Amino acid sequence: MRYNSILKSAVFCLSTAFLLAVGTAIPAAAQDVPDLQTPKPPLVLDAQGSFVVGGEEIAAAAGDLGQGAAPGHITINQMYVEYMIPHGATKVPVVMVHGGGLSGKSFQTTPDGRMGWNEYFVREGHPVYNVDQVSRARSGFNPTVFNKVRAGLLPPAALPNISRTSDEAAWQNFRFGPSFGVPWPDEQFPVEHAADFSKQGIPDLNAILTPPAPPALSSIDSYKVLSDLAIKLKGAVLMGHSESSDFPLKAVLTNSTGIKGAIFLETTVPTRCLQFTDQEIAKLATVPILFEFNDHLNQQPAGVLASFHNCKALIAKINAAGGNATMLHPAELGIHGNSHMVMLDKNNLQIADLILKWMDENVEAETAEK
Amino acid sequence: MRYNSILKSAVFCLSTAFLLAVGTAIPAAAQDVPDLQTPKPPLVLDAQGSFVVGGEEIAAAAGDLGQGAAPGHITINQMYVEYMIPHGATKVPVVMVHGGGLSGKSFQTTPDGRMGWNEYFVREGHPVYNVDQVSRARSGFNPTVFNKVRAGLLPPAALPNISRTSDEAAWQNFRFGPSFGVPWPDEQFPVEHAADFSKQGIPDLNAILTPPAPPALSSIDSYKVLSDLAIKLKGAVLMGHSESSDFPLKAVLTNSTGIKGAIFLETTVPTRCLQFTDQEIAKLATVPILFEFNDHLNQQPAGVLASFHNCKALIAKINAAGGNATMLHPAELGIHGNSHMVMLDKNNLQIADLILKWMDENVEAETAEK
Repeated sequence: MRYNSILKSAVFCLSTAFLLAVGTAIPAAAQDVPDLQTPKPPLVLDAQGSFVVGGEEIAAAAGDLGQGAAPGHITINQMYVEYMIPHGATKVPVVMVHGGGLSGKSFQTTPDGRMGWNEYFVREGHPVYNVDQVSRARSGFNPTVFNKVRAGLLPPAALPNISRTSDEAAWQNFRFGPSFGVPWPDEQFPVEHAADFSKQGIPDLNAILTPPAPPALSSIDSYKVLSDLAIKLKGAVLMGHSESSDFPLKAVLTNSTGIKGAIFLETTVPTRCLQFTDQEIAKLATVPILFEFNDHLNQQPAGVLASFHNCKALIAKINAAGGNATMLHPAELGIHGNSHMVMLDKNNLQIADLILKWMDENVEAETAEK
Repeated sequence: MRYNSILKSAVFCLSTAFLLAVGTAIPAAAQDVPDLQTPKPPLVLDAQGSFVVGGEEIAAAAGDLGQGAAPGHITINQMYVEYMIPHGATKVPVVMVHGGGLSGKSFQTTPDGRMGWNEYFVREGHPVYNVDQVSRARSGFNPTVFNKVRAGLLPPAALPNISRTSDEAAWQNFRFGPSFGVPWPDEQFPVEHAADFSKQGIPDLNAILTPPAPPALSSIDSYKVLSDLAIKLKGAVLMGHSESSDFPLKAVLTNSTGIKGAIFLETTVPTRCLQFTDQEIAKLATVPILFEFNDHLNQQPAGVLASFHNCKALIAKINAAGGNATMLHPAELGIHGNSHMVMLDKNNLQIADLILKWMDENVEAETAEK
């Protein structure tokens, strides 16, 4: 029996107490400090902290680093990593990578104050490394193009597109319900705290990493940063979500040395599971891979159902090549109403248990055999 | 005897082992996972996690949230807060606010892998709330002006200035040494890991919070977010550093209800302690305030020595108004070589002890009396 069982009653009674009937606007229940739950027992950590990996030094011209700034050097394309190592950890480290328009906040406390996956995986014995994607949040971004455009040295078209998910787009694309403000009857996302989820959305600058004109710098490479991190950790499972869902697979193709397993959570982009060549599929067959898709796939947004089927086809190809790939679709197990933001759903720990079980059976067991 | 004493030997022997003679370029010792220290005993937390406070909803037009994006609503000006609550905490919560071109990473693990102030204050019994400033890192920023300029709807001059501290500017302004690559003989900053410090620098978008043209939105107000947070926490000490050094004082002026103490760490801006009216000084006199300045004040950068003296004059005025303001200048206590980035210095825990002692004597004692 997992730790989950101990928590379940406390977790569910609080969240359901706040579940209000909602209308056609985003619910306004504001998160407050008393919403933050205090799970028992205390969390005992052998270590916690943060570091920054990857990155390259560039020379910036006068003004590139702000109005009137002298020329100088800065680091760009680095990746911030925060970690918690449970007391007496024996299980494989897990690296968590958030999705588009979000940060490492995604795997922390939920918008309604429940335990995030980062702490839960730690409580289950896994060291957890939670990152901010390259060019996002605490990883920073390269400011030089913005200052050059501001100074008239580059045209406005040189600016990267900056994407920020609106509350309305989140409701539809993250599958909170059929129309803005209306949840699915079985919805697991804590929609009464949608306004708090809106606060953890941030601008997505990934477009800056793929400049339209060459040369693209080789180290602008989130995949290499991740495969390098797995090596530094002497073995890790990589978990990607949505925008980063295929980062773990790309990291396997870059350098699989440190990668003990790859977890692909929820993409709504149907081409993402179609992009691999037979040669690449042969390489993907060397690492245990879990794909995970949640509920309401046949309703919206366009593409998610096709994506689910395309990933199933990829799984078949990986397994035909001798690999170990699995689809976890909770709805097939009778667990309904999970959203795209499954790590924040009300039953987030129930879904985590399924992933932990997969790691126990496919990663820990395999490592033990070797 | 503080926990510091237990750690001292382990902490110092590792850092000095890495201290290499450096030349005229930024030292290249790259941080790696083995650099990360594992303090004993394990850290026992009653709770840890994150939440987001403040913010306001705005309506974005088509294209404002990215090329082709539909109109919709987003939240801006919110503030990300991460927290750790030690087991059996009895001491006053501390809110830590980082400085310019940096994020909450400043109070975490040092660039050479030692314990950050956030964990140390927790180990000393204080709940710690470490934030990303409004418009920075995990707090996000308002992307609409960037997308409008890119689309040609606003002129390039509408872009906010984005400031990023170069390695060279950091060396001088953060008082690592007399010239780039050369440390002061008694320098406490871990200069052998300056390249790792470079990786935690990020773009500073504070200029976006003070648009040149009115109306400035009232809730674009880091001070109010902080004073509100102190109330939510039912009392807290606010600590600001450098760019945010005066945020705790401004928060006192906004609403002192929840503020049990204010800590002003290191500003190089001489006007910052000159900005308060007599009426405001009378209000500052209602809260215990600690000012802290480090070493090499008479050398560089220009302004820091004047700032030190101006803050001493402010202290005298606050105390003349019946307040309790103190200057902590470790050099006067025989502790030399501390930098602007004191929370990352090799003796960061020694300086933390002085701050903790001030809190014990001026905040905890005062609270106990009431």
